[in-house]
Amino acid sequence: MGFLFLFAGKTKEGFIREGLDRYAKLAGHYVPVEVRELKGTPGTDRADAVEKEADGILKRLSPSDRVVVLDEHGKNPDSVSFAKKVGSLAETGGRVVFVAGGPFGISDRLRERADTLLSLSKMTFTHEMARLVLLEQVYRAFTIIKGKTYHY
Amino acid sequence: MGFLFLFAGKTKEGFIREGLDRYAKLAGHYVPVEVRELKGTPGTDRADAVEKEADGILKRLSPSDRVVVLDEHGKNPDSVSFAKKVGSLAETGGRVVFVAGGPFGISDRLRERADTLLSLSKMTFTHEMARLVLLEQVYRAFTIIKGKTYHY
Repeated sequence: MGFLFLFAGKTKEGFIREGLDRYAKLAGHYVPVEVRELKGTPGTDRADAVEKEADGILKRLSPSDRVVVLDEHGKNPDSVSFAKKVGSLAETGGRVVFVAGGPFGISDRLRERADTLLSLSKMTFTHEMARLVLLEQVYRAFTIIKGKTYHY
Repeated sequence: MGFLFLFAGKTKEGFIREGLDRYAKLAGHYVPVEVRELKGTPGTDRADAVEKEADGILKRLSPSDRVVVLDEHGKNPDSVSFAKKVGSLAETGGRVVFVAGGPFGISDRLRERADTLLSLSKMTFTHEMARLVLLEQVYRAFTIIKGKTYHY
């Protein structure tokens, strides 16, 4: 039960780490939240890095997990539609895992395992900014569901 | 000459201020960048606040400024299209002003003054997150123009 954020590679930017902590704590008022950053794969080429990251992520997933994977080619909902999605995921009572890849993108194996492919914008964010926007939107989703005045 | 970011109200979140400084400095390698945050309008109601903020912003604009206003109903380009836009604005050699409102949105008077209405995503960001994403995308735009490998 709860929301697990599984990120490939450590978040390096200090201000982004701080923001992730902030929104994880705020979202934690609504659902148990854990952010886990897997070790990066230095010294490997891009394709290798992406597959090794996928190995690390896939072995941490259970068959019963509902999995949302960040993918620039995924669906880009507005915040209200996303809130409905988050609400229905939270209601399943099972574990929900949000996956975000490293700087080189994600493996097709992750796309195949995903229940939902999510894009945050037509604009491309750095993989670290995407993490921050994701956490903020999940927090925002709960405030929308609960009718809190955080819409601005 | 240069890019001025004009924000209604001070940015309160420490990690976002830090991120704004970071990307302003990085973008500053390509074009003179200034970030100016106008005083907020405490104690006023929403509609009043929005109009007072517009007054403060409009009086700082020159007729020759090219003005890009953040607006959730604006155009949401991808990063490459946005980079082309930023490149053509930089090439005019005049001053380019990016305007972002406060928590209650923006006045129609600002929409009317805008040369471009820009949306960063179908998702709604907090007004502070929108500032951060804007600065990051402007920095990214220059790296795309210059062919730097910052696309991820």
